[in-house]
Amino acid sequence: MIAELGAAIVENGMTIGLGSGSTMAYFVEAVAKRINEEKLTVQFVPASKTIEQKALDYGLKLISIECVQEIDYAFDGADWIINKETLIKGGGGSLFREKKILLNSVQRFILADESKFIDRLSDSIIPIEIVPFGYTKTIHSIREVGGECYLRKRMDEEKYLTDNYNYIVDARFSGIGNWGFIHEQLKRIQGVVDTGIFCNMEFQIITLEKE
Amino acid sequence: MIAELGAAIVENGMTIGLGSGSTMAYFVEAVAKRINEEKLTVQFVPASKTIEQKALDYGLKLISIECVQEIDYAFDGADWIINKETLIKGGGGSLFREKKILLNSVQRFILADESKFIDRLSDSIIPIEIVPFGYTKTIHSIREVGGECYLRKRMDEEKYLTDNYNYIVDARFSGIGNWGFIHEQLKRIQGVVDTGIFCNMEFQIITLEKE
Repeated sequence: MIAELGAAIVENGMTIGLGSGSTMAYFVEAVAKRINEEKLTVQFVPASKTIEQKALDYGLKLISIECVQEIDYAFDGADWIINKETLIKGGGGSLFREKKILLNSVQRFILADESKFIDRLSDSIIPIEIVPFGYTKTIHSIREVGGECYLRKRMDEEKYLTDNYNYIVDARFSGIGNWGFIHEQLKRIQGVVDTGIFCNMEFQIITLEKE
Repeated sequence: MIAELGAAIVENGMTIGLGSGSTMAYFVEAVAKRINEEKLTVQFVPASKTIEQKALDYGLKLISIECVQEIDYAFDGADWIINKETLIKGGGGSLFREKKILLNSVQRFILADESKFIDRLSDSIIPIEIVPFGYTKTIHSIREVGGECYLRKRMDEEKYLTDNYNYIVDARFSGIGNWGFIHEQLKRIQGVVDTGIFCNMEFQIITLEKE
């Protein structure tokens, strides 16, 4: 239902950023249905290889982010939406590309049910993308900022690799008031590519009101 | 000669960080000669695949950075040494690994002849390592910080890839007083992995005095 609300606002001729995750998989189905029924011309910039494959399966037209000046609308989900200002994302491991797409979009829409809304989040796991070389040293620096770190592994116990050939550290932070400050501290660390904290970014929320 | 001065201070039992570039290639030859002659046990952490191969050719014992708590001495070259405080590096494209090794070494030695010393550098090309996805957008943000950007290409015109599977942008900055500040501004940009500005890092210089 939320995915359909999102699909309804797509307009003919637009370039659309596609986040990743389960909500976005529903969005792809809903928007493909609308495009086919209404014969719309819309092109999509996908944020992960998984959502790219899903989009291809549904016959959506894809375009590289390098080939568009800007993206009209981006749609994405979130793990948490704090105070309607800050997003915590990256449970799916695609935080870098999702953020790149959101940052380069004119308007941003976050599709989420009410369970994701939260006024204040003081403890959370933050996915952090890091360069593989020297990862033990980078993790040491993340610990110094207060994160309790777990290197993400695949089911077969090999280290998880992002679409950018980096590792993900899931870092638990406690007693945090200002997530933007934590992002800045982390991003300064040599070896940290990006974090799952999305702040200083205006967005609209698409959700279903409780009856 | 400078390489030999560096090789002379290596001690038995040490873990040594090996930067990259032409000076370091001479250092590998000089240190291998000493190790063989004096039957020393020394292990090396190389900063690039090129210097790693050179070290293997000379029979040096290598170890992964992940397997050592810290590196005793790191040796490296530099493109510029500003005011004996800040290094500009990365002409060879290995800036990330070089910096990771230097940051995790107890003592750092920069091998350089006097032509690299400079009191003040207001204009320079700074190599910047960036994530390939969305590189056009990242370059746009680097331009906003004042850099005139050139994406590094290989001889065959394909994009140059670092050992971390990233791109290098060579960005020319003019009229700069504080390179540390430029590094901080660049590192904040989404997509920037690291820069060739090495500051806030104590090091000793190994050089030859003019007669």
